[in-house]
Amino acid sequence: MVTLLQTLHALLTPFPPLPSSYLVTIATPCLISPVIFKATSCRGSGSGGKVSSFTKFPHLAGTEQNLHLAKQIQAQWKEFGLDSAELVHYDVLLSYPNETQPNYVSIIDDQGNEIFNTSLFETPPQGYENITGVLPPYNAFSAQGVPEADLVYVNYGRTEDFFKLEREIGINCTGKIVIARYGKIFRGNKVKNAILAGAKGIILYSDPADYCAPGVDPYPNGWNLPGGGVQRGNVLNLNGAGDPLTPGYPAKEYTFRSEVDEGVGIPKIPVHPIGYHDAEILLRILGGPAAPDNSWRGNLNVSYNIGPGFAGSYSIRKVRMHVHTHNKITRIYNVIGTISGAEEPDRYIILGGHRDSWVFGGIDPTTGAAVLQEVARSFGKMMMEGWRPKRTIIFASWDAEEFGLLGSTEWAESKPLKKDFPVCVWFSGNYTLRVDCSPLLYKLVYNLTEEIASPDEDYEGKSLYESWLEKDPSTESKSHPRINKLGSGSDFEAYFQRLGITSGRARYTKNRRADKFSNYPVYHTVYETFELVERFYDPTFMKQLTVAQLRGGLVYELADSQVIPFNCQDYGEALRKYTNRIYNLTKKHEEQVETYRVSFGPLFSAVMNFTEAAADFHRRLKEVDVNNPIAVRIMNDQLMFVERAFIDPLGLPGRKFYRHIVFAPSSHNKYAGESFPGIYDAVFDIENKADQRKAWEEVKRQISIAAFTVQAAAGTLKDVA
Amino acid sequence: MVTLLQTLHALLTPFPPLPSSYLVTIATPCLISPVIFKATSCRGSGSGGKVSSFTKFPHLAGTEQNLHLAKQIQAQWKEFGLDSAELVHYDVLLSYPNETQPNYVSIIDDQGNEIFNTSLFETPPQGYENITGVLPPYNAFSAQGVPEADLVYVNYGRTEDFFKLEREIGINCTGKIVIARYGKIFRGNKVKNAILAGAKGIILYSDPADYCAPGVDPYPNGWNLPGGGVQRGNVLNLNGAGDPLTPGYPAKEYTFRSEVDEGVGIPKIPVHPIGYHDAEILLRILGGPAAPDNSWRGNLNVSYNIGPGFAGSYSIRKVRMHVHTHNKITRIYNVIGTISGAEEPDRYIILGGHRDSWVFGGIDPTTGAAVLQEVARSFGKMMMEGWRPKRTIIFASWDAEEFGLLGSTEWAESKPLKKDFPVCVWFSGNYTLRVDCSPLLYKLVYNLTEEIASPDEDYEGKSLYESWLEKDPSTESKSHPRINKLGSGSDFEAYFQRLGITSGRARYTKNRRADKFSNYPVYHTVYETFELVERFYDPTFMKQLTVAQLRGGLVYELADSQVIPFNCQDYGEALRKYTNRIYNLTKKHEEQVETYRVSFGPLFSAVMNFTEAAADFHRRLKEVDVNNPIAVRIMNDQLMFVERAFIDPLGLPGRKFYRHIVFAPSSHNKYAGESFPGIYDAVFDIENKADQRKAWEEVKRQISIAAFTVQAAAGTLKDVA
Repeated sequence: MVTLLQTLHALLTPFPPLPSSYLVTIATPCLISPVIFKATSCRGSGSGGKVSSFTKFPHLAGTEQNLHLAKQIQAQWKEFGLDSAELVHYDVLLSYPNETQPNYVSIIDDQGNEIFNTSLFETPPQGYENITGVLPPYNAFSAQGVPEADLVYVNYGRTEDFFKLEREIGINCTGKIVIARYGKIFRGNKVKNAILAGAKGIILYSDPADYCAPGVDPYPNGWNLPGGGVQRGNVLNLNGAGDPLTPGYPAKEYTFRSEVDEGVGIPKIPVHPIGYHDAEILLRILGGPAAPDNSWRGNLNVSYNIGPGFAGSYSIRKVRMHVHTHNKITRIYNVIGTISGAEEPDRYIILGGHRDSWVFGGIDPTTGAAVLQEVARSFGKMMMEGWRPKRTIIFASWDAEEFGLLGSTEWAESKPLKKDFPVCVWFSGNYTLRVDCSPLLYKLVYNLTEEIASPDEDYEGKSLYESWLEKDPSTESKSHPRINKLGSGSDFEAYFQRLGITSGRARYTKNRRADKFSNYPVYHTVYETFELVERFYDPTFMKQLTVAQLRGGLVYELADSQVIPFNCQDYGEALRKYTNRIYNLTKKHEEQVETYRVSFGPLFSAVMNFTEAAADFHRRLKEVDVNNPIAVRIMNDQLMFVERAFIDPLGLPGRKFYRHIVFAPSSHNKYAGESFPGIYDAVFDIENKADQRKAWEEVKRQISIAAFTVQAAAGTLKDVA
Repeated sequence: MVTLLQTLHALLTPFPPLPSSYLVTIATPCLISPVIFKATSCRGSGSGGKVSSFTKFPHLAGTEQNLHLAKQIQAQWKEFGLDSAELVHYDVLLSYPNETQPNYVSIIDDQGNEIFNTSLFETPPQGYENITGVLPPYNAFSAQGVPEADLVYVNYGRTEDFFKLEREIGINCTGKIVIARYGKIFRGNKVKNAILAGAKGIILYSDPADYCAPGVDPYPNGWNLPGGGVQRGNVLNLNGAGDPLTPGYPAKEYTFRSEVDEGVGIPKIPVHPIGYHDAEILLRILGGPAAPDNSWRGNLNVSYNIGPGFAGSYSIRKVRMHVHTHNKITRIYNVIGTISGAEEPDRYIILGGHRDSWVFGGIDPTTGAAVLQEVARSFGKMMMEGWRPKRTIIFASWDAEEFGLLGSTEWAESKPLKKDFPVCVWFSGNYTLRVDCSPLLYKLVYNLTEEIASPDEDYEGKSLYESWLEKDPSTESKSHPRINKLGSGSDFEAYFQRLGITSGRARYTKNRRADKFSNYPVYHTVYETFELVERFYDPTFMKQLTVAQLRGGLVYELADSQVIPFNCQDYGEALRKYTNRIYNLTKKHEEQVETYRVSFGPLFSAVMNFTEAAADFHRRLKEVDVNNPIAVRIMNDQLMFVERAFIDPLGLPGRKFYRHIVFAPSSHNKYAGESFPGIYDAVFDIENKADQRKAWEEVKRQISIAAFTVQAAAGTLKDVA
């Protein structure tokens, strides 16, 4: 076991970046190399059917181009030596702009004349001018419509922004069109908040404050967002449902579909995204109160007024949105590859990443897809040399992630899954490692990063763990690098949040303290090209190599260790931390806590029981008779069921597909993870709830559910009979 | 393996009934003997702490007497040699009559004077006159109230009875008090129907047509119901929720409880049960239309008019109900005993039965509880002789079954269960065997009954299988005895219908073709005594011995066979039968099926896939390397997951705790099992639904869910990697 991992690492000498190779390097001698990424993500064309084109063309879900890529990956996986590689299709609801009626936003004068229209497309980057299939920027699943109304600026469109607008500034959004800047939270939450506030439509734009780093040029001279660049993205509020028309069931040919107007999470108002050049013009027409404080001001050359009450030269100005985007049931394709386990073929480790891209997908998803290819190739190579893992490994190239994690969720809905470990990544920066995972994996991640060389400048000879720790230490204890809670926003969601399958993701990311911009600036624009990565993000491809080493190492250890390398004691520690946090949050309402007799005692007590059961379990685990395969499997089954035990079959209130009691995507920002989400949501804004008794009873109910669930999880760790 | 089962059977020579022994026969040499039943169910008192009193006192859930019995059983199980025996408590909502304000029904004249009152208690049987703790007849969880209204006779109070009343006879029950006879369906469904019809109260009575066999004397001279005997019973519509205040979670000290008025399934109207002497007087005051046909007429000396429009000598007569029953959160106790498995201690077989009784519980539950004791004693004896099963066996003496299966459901809610086989029985007749179980168990049940001697008169030298087949052959094929679908009405419910754990029950029962009476006549009355069983039902206790042999044999084979003796091909056959049945039911609506394009194709196709997967699985199972414990466990896990695969996490429409797609308690009668309940309920009475398109879309949705679920179950049987 150790020998093989050491071999793997020894073979991982950094390659010099190849000048501009187009050949797939199946035959290279190294196990995990940067070459595949170069090849898979390069946009050049080559010969012999061995040429990849992961970023040469757009690979939007539901298009011929993305099916073609699926077939290419399937063929490659077979060549790599996987036991099988299949296309698995679903017919899901997707959303496309109307080809003949473009989407845009107008400013209209009091005669109804459109005196300004936003641009209909992004200027393509050099060399991509003649590529077909580049769709103009749009927000998938927007309602159709041509609403006309006064415009209101709502900052990021967060819950707290709308609270401030309504409660402090005194502006009512009912019947208005609102304009929100991208960033901070998932765009679907902005749209939901706008709908709750009564808006008739919502415009999303990228403010330079959030999408331009100081001193950096716009692409192609730098990696900042150009003024005409526009972030695409879906605006669903699926809450984990997958295909909006088949919640809970896979979208196969025979599956019953609800009508689109009863589909899950589809907004009832038009939504349209624009760039900051256009936004500047729209924002100029705003009058009314000024932005309340600096947190409401971006970096445009406007005064950031809120509206309504326009200050322009026309007596009346409104905006009119034109949105003709339509929904369409469309076939999508996951590629599923397997390596059957030699000893426990009925236990599965999934390594997945999505394949579909909004346009060229230079970063999202190709940095992830290339790592997936490279890991598959490396495992294939090890197979050819006679190795086979104890447990089954599944590789998944998911489709339609961009449309609401559809491919991965439909596959999760299709199969009774027993044990899986889905890992999903892509890249979002080049500063340091970022890992989000279940506490069961903390130790394994730390151990693996200690064995991987840091790819960072000025960290020669140091481990990934060392550079990571220095650049992003944990807030609570400076002795470990930060690991984040799992929220959503990627394909692990159905596996972790719905099914309770231990999950994680790993990527390279920006400097969270220094870099104020959201994500990477050109995210989901036409400017996400291979050249972006090659010129600015990872010229040596060493950082992607590093991520491949970590992901490959995780899969390897999980699939081949005799005892599954999960650590339950870290879960106990995390539970303690989260319990303290939610307890402290509630303490702000001391009077009510006393009046309604809210006690966290049972939860603290359950966490203590879990901690003790975990310690005892790991003591027994050390003594397990490793020559008794059933005894080992029994304890492995217990490890596997710990995460599952945190699943409440009844789900969280109003979010039946989010069933993990310890973690959920935040109700206010799908991207972020919230701990003890049931309690958190019950306490949120509780002071403004009309029926205080009822509100606090709900807090008590949620504490009771959390306490029971933690206690039941402790029970799974007890000696079995 | 075979040797031990043979030993068991060889030792099972029928005992002559002991005259009136009070001693627990722990030391008797036979493994499964009738002696325990004699001892446990006898009402005499003895010496030395070894005396049982299962039927000497009332053992109502929540009483001191029932806790005492729990402790006694716990002590006995320890004595028998089980590895552990514990009391596991819950605090659940129970319901008791008010001690100072009795419940009754009055006839009132136009002055409001009560000119007749129903009796306040049953005359106790001889020898039981001075026993304390006998509660008067009541319907647990009735609402309190003193409603006064015209009386309407609603026959059995079934869905079809109310349909006939409203649609054909033209009587509206809104604001009326209705009187329904017991029988045919679960009483809770009658109450639900009355509430849906708008009734202000409901009186339940036992008609001689349903509770007196022709030519049989009332108890104590025969086993018929005396005129003053009254059936008790709860009238909840829990739909599997367990404790009404803690649906989905165990009712522990720290558990959040909803307010009683938000409790699950608690009726909002008063309900009261009466005997047929009182019923005769009430029914005499009815005028109005005569009962529409013979199916509406019982055997009382009245004309079975429907009402309203009274025919008595007073100008106006109404009835007034007095119900003061109150709900109370009360502690209950399950007794849980275990024998740890030697090889797979993390796989469990549960043998359970309830302990609580409405009064003495001569039949219900003591015939079942005695069998449980006897099986526990026998296994204990085998343990003392050095045996230990491969898998863990759990014995469960459930509490508060009579109040809605509360003890068993709360326990199911408490533990993350991996594999269990709950068996629950009691006795309801002496004619032949009755088995209700999952199709996975058909073969095992048939095999075991072939090895058990028939206890029936005139079947000397024949097997139980032979007498059973002759007396109750299957309707479809005369070559097998009938096995019924699992509905509810007993403690397997949470395990099978909610969790998808393979389950079964076995009892001796009446002649379904000849005996028209419901259940056994004195069911849930004070006349259910030990003497009833000893004099009329099972004087030699041989029939209970037979049931013990079958139940013990089932547990033994499931716990100790290397390969779990489930047969998946029988499930395929059952699915085919159920699919044909529901398809034929839908065919009655040929026009709509065509208009709305309703197709059963996907379901038939999924069933065919399941059938093929099952055949293939059993082929592979024959070839499994029995010397590879992991290989065997993998296939056993697959067998275990077949039933689980029929669980839909989203549950049936409106019944989230009934999650088995193939079986559910009927929506119209909790006692009965319905196959493909989602489709059945969608089609039920569909011709009377207002929106036909919507109604048929729901049928299509349910077919889609069934097809997917069967297909997924087929998937679990496929080769694992």
